[in-house]
Amino acid sequence: MINKTTLNKIKEIVGSKNYFDSHAYLLSYSYDATPLIHQKPDAVVFPNNVEEISKIVRLANEYKFAIVPRGSGTGLSGGSVPIEDSIILVTSHWNKILEFDEKNFTVLVEPGVITANLQSYVEDRNLFYPPDPGSSSISTLGGNVAENAGGLRGLKYGVTKNYVLGLEVVLPTGEIIFTGGKSIKDVAGYNLKDYFIGSEGTLGIFSKLLLKLIPLPESKKTILVEFSTIEDAINSINEIILSRITPSMLEFIDKLTLQCIEAYAKLGFSNSVETVILIEVDGNKFYVEESCEKIKEIVLKNNSLSFQISKDTAEELKLKKARKIAFSSLARVKPTAISEDVVVPRSELLKMVTQINSISKKHDVQIGTFGHAGDGNLHPIVLCDERDTKNLNNALRAVNDIFDASINLGGTITGEHGVGIAKREYLTKQISNPGIEMMRKIKKSIDPNSVLNPGKIFDLKPKCEGKLPSNQKQVEEYLAKDLWI
Amino acid sequence: MINKTTLNKIKEIVGSKNYFDSHAYLLSYSYDATPLIHQKPDAVVFPNNVEEISKIVRLANEYKFAIVPRGSGTGLSGGSVPIEDSIILVTSHWNKILEFDEKNFTVLVEPGVITANLQSYVEDRNLFYPPDPGSSSISTLGGNVAENAGGLRGLKYGVTKNYVLGLEVVLPTGEIIFTGGKSIKDVAGYNLKDYFIGSEGTLGIFSKLLLKLIPLPESKKTILVEFSTIEDAINSINEIILSRITPSMLEFIDKLTLQCIEAYAKLGFSNSVETVILIEVDGNKFYVEESCEKIKEIVLKNNSLSFQISKDTAEELKLKKARKIAFSSLARVKPTAISEDVVVPRSELLKMVTQINSISKKHDVQIGTFGHAGDGNLHPIVLCDERDTKNLNNALRAVNDIFDASINLGGTITGEHGVGIAKREYLTKQISNPGIEMMRKIKKSIDPNSVLNPGKIFDLKPKCEGKLPSNQKQVEEYLAKDLWI
Repeated sequence: MINKTTLNKIKEIVGSKNYFDSHAYLLSYSYDATPLIHQKPDAVVFPNNVEEISKIVRLANEYKFAIVPRGSGTGLSGGSVPIEDSIILVTSHWNKILEFDEKNFTVLVEPGVITANLQSYVEDRNLFYPPDPGSSSISTLGGNVAENAGGLRGLKYGVTKNYVLGLEVVLPTGEIIFTGGKSIKDVAGYNLKDYFIGSEGTLGIFSKLLLKLIPLPESKKTILVEFSTIEDAINSINEIILSRITPSMLEFIDKLTLQCIEAYAKLGFSNSVETVILIEVDGNKFYVEESCEKIKEIVLKNNSLSFQISKDTAEELKLKKARKIAFSSLARVKPTAISEDVVVPRSELLKMVTQINSISKKHDVQIGTFGHAGDGNLHPIVLCDERDTKNLNNALRAVNDIFDASINLGGTITGEHGVGIAKREYLTKQISNPGIEMMRKIKKSIDPNSVLNPGKIFDLKPKCEGKLPSNQKQVEEYLAKDLWI
Repeated sequence: MINKTTLNKIKEIVGSKNYFDSHAYLLSYSYDATPLIHQKPDAVVFPNNVEEISKIVRLANEYKFAIVPRGSGTGLSGGSVPIEDSIILVTSHWNKILEFDEKNFTVLVEPGVITANLQSYVEDRNLFYPPDPGSSSISTLGGNVAENAGGLRGLKYGVTKNYVLGLEVVLPTGEIIFTGGKSIKDVAGYNLKDYFIGSEGTLGIFSKLLLKLIPLPESKKTILVEFSTIEDAINSINEIILSRITPSMLEFIDKLTLQCIEAYAKLGFSNSVETVILIEVDGNKFYVEESCEKIKEIVLKNNSLSFQISKDTAEELKLKKARKIAFSSLARVKPTAISEDVVVPRSELLKMVTQINSISKKHDVQIGTFGHAGDGNLHPIVLCDERDTKNLNNALRAVNDIFDASINLGGTITGEHGVGIAKREYLTKQISNPGIEMMRKIKKSIDPNSVLNPGKIFDLKPKCEGKLPSNQKQVEEYLAKDLWI
């Protein structure tokens, strides 16, 4: 617990109407979208300007408390879940688009702007901000940058970091810097901007984001294809890519997910449908037409059961609906839905899906899988009831096995969600000790008092409540190697 | 001078046939493609494998000598120029393509593979490695990654860092890590891979590079347009971009450069031509045709004198010739050609070109300017004779003023070449002190003994010979703030 005197100093900085410590507030900010983990902060503050953030950070260095930056809290790895002796610093109310530069195709925004709001703002001006995380209708751009959010368009357009040109950041020592700029190319010194992207709030707090826009594609088509086997679907995905088409979306939905979608929304998928793939192709209208023709040939050759293509926006939205409601359709089946985000090299997709199905059987838990198959990024959703200890433990064992399977296939434990608290004990499965040590050294050199979002990524020390997936072997290894920061 | 005993230990590691300290060798490795600066190393070594690099690095930590990694030495900021008490460690003989993964569109290469060799290797397989630095026919991929090389295709395709998926790196403490992998998305911890890209050999030595490939565009066309005023040319460039066309090349050549090209190669540019722009559009054949039509309309509206479009590869090469020989045409005019690489926001291009012309007059030095106008990246080539002190000093004052002009327009002092030795005294013009300090902290935390390429980027301490552009005010500021590492 941060002592009362210190909390009062924080309150003085932001003013009493922007400082909250009622039970209701602390409870509301004790969790994010991650299941199982939660911890009440000691206070929640809404700073008025970047100088106030700087003052709070300097105070944290002096009085040794932790600051957890937070946008909308849509994160799925507990990155904005508090740890003990911390305050939550919210920037979601900073939601203005500060400058639209129509000549240089850039936009300067506050960190609290909602992703989808920026998307529609720039699309109205015939420009495009491609990063499209699943939570775009509520996630903030600041959070997207902190987590290096991915989404549906990664295959063709990359992820958030490919669209960040500059950042105004409060450093862990309180200085305010602007790194980057409107120059498309810049190699003046270490690329500090990229250090902050995906650092999950541990290296700086963003106060302004300069983002890159690209021309809005002139045309797009959405295609939905049904298959009676997983093999046919995944072979189609690989053949589309090998034919040198790069769709802007190439999504996959498995049988269990389809059944749950059908139970929830009755979209008309018959029981013989084992897998669905959803494809979006965008660009010049001739290119789009030509690509759709080629895709039709490929899926037909691979025994597709049906091929539906959108004629207008209404049809596009209809075809996308199954994918859009995939998570919520699964989540309503059981009280707890653990959403994972492994990525494997695309060639290993079929093996990964097959292994997830074996893991589901082995641990007797339901796992529905969908995801961004085009870039090898799958979301296995492990369904359980956290109140049933046996069931929960089986689910956590399944999660552990999914990570192992991904690593063994040359993949990663997280493609989009980050490590946060939820995966901090699993990071050494993927990153070797010198790599972890390098992260630790960087953190220590920039944030010597560990005031910014401690307890995340590679820092196992600070505690939080909840039923954290536990990898006891890893904890012991960390302890033995003194790998705490 | 590194002492004899230490040099013998280095020789033992690589074997005497891979160790050189003859006058001829030391002289050959005393410079790179950067004018004015040079310094003889104490030895030049060609390690046989990554373990030998690791051993040399550990030795450097023990006996406190500096290691300067080097590929082909085509760098233009002195990044591979030795400093006192250093050895040159060459990896240009490691030139094998180790794995071509046709399913995942990746390639694993040794750092000494020549950029153009990789390009033709993958283009034969209908794939594309877009980064295309001017020196691609001799530069190594390891050097490209160390400098985050840009080139002609930055506007549409980005720079080297957008194509690096993974790196095997020897850390400054001697550990060997592999960071990154074939997963397109990966947010497991800090993005260590990106820390090394563009770090100019100061954070690690590369032993393997995993690179991303994309489908080779089906079609391309090259266009050359002549203008009688700079304004018309630059207005055309801006209108092309604003019309939502993204050319794969959008290059600019000014009057002085054209005159030198004409004197050298007699390509037939008449004296009334003030500026030339070179455009390449690639993609689907319909898109390419449609874009060329639109471009024709735009340049006609902007008073173009001529419009030539390529029908085949022979014509494409003919149209590209002027741009290809631009630097050498200028370089033959005077004994010393200082090649700069400022980048400004595209909207500021005309102002930047105008200011370069004023700077040329003010200091009475010839400056020919060409470059990647589409991404705001200009190469002003300052011509002088380094044996004429007055002329050289004027040239160096012009360089200083060019940096100031770029910064004042919201630009950068280097878009492609890096800081190295040549611009280390100018970095604080662009980066604020907390930013420089952050770089310094990162370097110190990862390379505590400063064994990897010291004297570069932000480290002014180690000396080298030659007539370094000097920014005395900056040196004094650094000294006063104890900003040495």
